[in-house]
Amino acid sequence: MKVQHYTETAAEGVPGMPGVAVRWVIAEADGAPHFAMRVFDVPAGAATEYHQHWWEHEIFVLAGRGHVRGEAGEFPLGEGTVAFIPGGEMHQLVNDGEGVLRFLCLIPHPKLEGLARGG
Amino acid sequence: MKVQHYTETAAEGVPGMPGVAVRWVIAEADGAPHFAMRVFDVPAGAATEYHQHWWEHEIFVLAGRGHVRGEAGEFPLGEGTVAFIPGGEMHQLVNDGEGVLRFLCLIPHPKLEGLARGG
Repeated sequence: MKVQHYTETAAEGVPGMPGVAVRWVIAEADGAPHFAMRVFDVPAGAATEYHQHWWEHEIFVLAGRGHVRGEAGEFPLGEGTVAFIPGGEMHQLVNDGEGVLRFLCLIPHPKLEGLARGG
Repeated sequence: MKVQHYTETAAEGVPGMPGVAVRWVIAEADGAPHFAMRVFDVPAGAATEYHQHWWEHEIFVLAGRGHVRGEAGEFPLGEGTVAFIPGGEMHQLVNDGEGVLRFLCLIPHPKLEGLARGG
């Protein structure tokens, strides 16, 4: 069992996303067998990349205001918003508020690619 | 893409855990291929069961005060605490504060049992 405050995990920069910080609070190195928990801080005026990849996102917004841009349009984000972004769908998270936009974003480990298809 | 506030998902009771409510905010029925996101509300004076199972927990505390009891002892929980509980380890989450203890708890889908072992 690992129990600690999320800020005890060091924040890292994210290539291609200036100003964005990520903490891998539960990772494969912790013994997590299937998926990882990350905490993102997106400063005011910043955004994640508009991109897609095979893995899904399970997101929970902790603080701030913003929106998520997807293939079907834009949806507002605030404290308590949940977002599920399927693998393969273009997406971007944008901070359009005045404070930090902080959210959890969980993803499957790379070794799961293809394992659960058709399930 | 599914985007909504967590309270838009109906709260359900949990067998064997009086007073505890759970919302399955991202589930297999939403198209999530690997794991599910749940939000638990544990009222003051209540607790989850002391139990174990094959699947792991990835937990993030949203509000309240409490502790997690594991095989190695007890660890305090408060807003922003992250807990990773490996599969097979006995555990219990206890609200020893005055307000609700609210946390996210993510688990792999049943179909992943055994898939990632040895990975």
